[in-house]
Amino acid sequence: MIAVTKTNVFPKIEDKTEREEGTVFAPNFDAHGLLPVIVTSAKTGEVLMFAFMNAQALALSIETGEAHYWSRSRKSLWRKGETSGNTQRIVEMRTDCDQDVIWLKVEMTGAEACCHTGRRSCFYRAIPTGDAPGAALSLVWVDAERHFDPDAVYGHGAAAKGTLKSS
Amino acid sequence: MIAVTKTNVFPKIEDKTEREEGTVFAPNFDAHGLLPVIVTSAKTGEVLMFAFMNAQALALSIETGEAHYWSRSRKSLWRKGETSGNTQRIVEMRTDCDQDVIWLKVEMTGAEACCHTGRRSCFYRAIPTGDAPGAALSLVWVDAERHFDPDAVYGHGAAAKGTLKSS
Repeated sequence: MIAVTKTNVFPKIEDKTEREEGTVFAPNFDAHGLLPVIVTSAKTGEVLMFAFMNAQALALSIETGEAHYWSRSRKSLWRKGETSGNTQRIVEMRTDCDQDVIWLKVEMTGAEACCHTGRRSCFYRAIPTGDAPGAALSLVWVDAERHFDPDAVYGHGAAAKGTLKSS
Repeated sequence: MIAVTKTNVFPKIEDKTEREEGTVFAPNFDAHGLLPVIVTSAKTGEVLMFAFMNAQALALSIETGEAHYWSRSRKSLWRKGETSGNTQRIVEMRTDCDQDVIWLKVEMTGAEACCHTGRRSCFYRAIPTGDAPGAALSLVWVDAERHFDPDAVYGHGAAAKGTLKSS
């Protein structure tokens, strides 16, 4: 479904203990050659976005210290901010116990906004808890002000075309 | 591949603008009926773990305020802490722009540890940046002390059997 880069420079580890308790970085890509990436603000700690990296995006992120992703909708490598100017400098990069997830702490440049809707974070709505979900459940806006105008940045209607998620 | 619960109480929204700019919660489950879930500490902001919810786990989490997940390895609903006692009370729950990711801010009980290896967070190793990845790349331990003994909690060898990730 998704093309996997041919430049996978990362080793593989089959042994579970070695993968969890060792210092060899052997990212465990999924069947599509991708790793989920959690992106948080180094300044505030909030979750900014969720994306994917293939081996090439991962290698470029490590080498340059600038966040690169794999866009599943556009099926292409994507340097965060290449259109919007809102790039991400990687302050810290971590992997999880079984090395199949990446956590990036980043500093944002430009409008300091991350979501293609113009908001700082993609997570601008809360889900109320305490009652069984049903017709009465209504999302609550949180930190939802826009930091840039998506139509001005991406061109009129670009966001509505569905080709953008974060940028 | 993975059984989808029959109790999906959530509506569907096809219109992109409505999904991004509305207050109807219409989670956009993937082809396996799952949503990725980012779990952070409400106290420290750190990322604790990454997991998945099916519709049933999502509905139970919303109703009870206690984190429930879908275990892909065990193919079963999983109330976090049911074995280890390290449950997660949901302080805030959010969704992202296109409603296909969940972010939970939680308070941990018990040993205040989340990872099946006994550590507070699953993300206990950093990936150095600034050089192209290669043989010299070595992960760096960060916040890696164990808060409980996995063999004592899960039974000798349980962790090594590969049936646990977080618990």
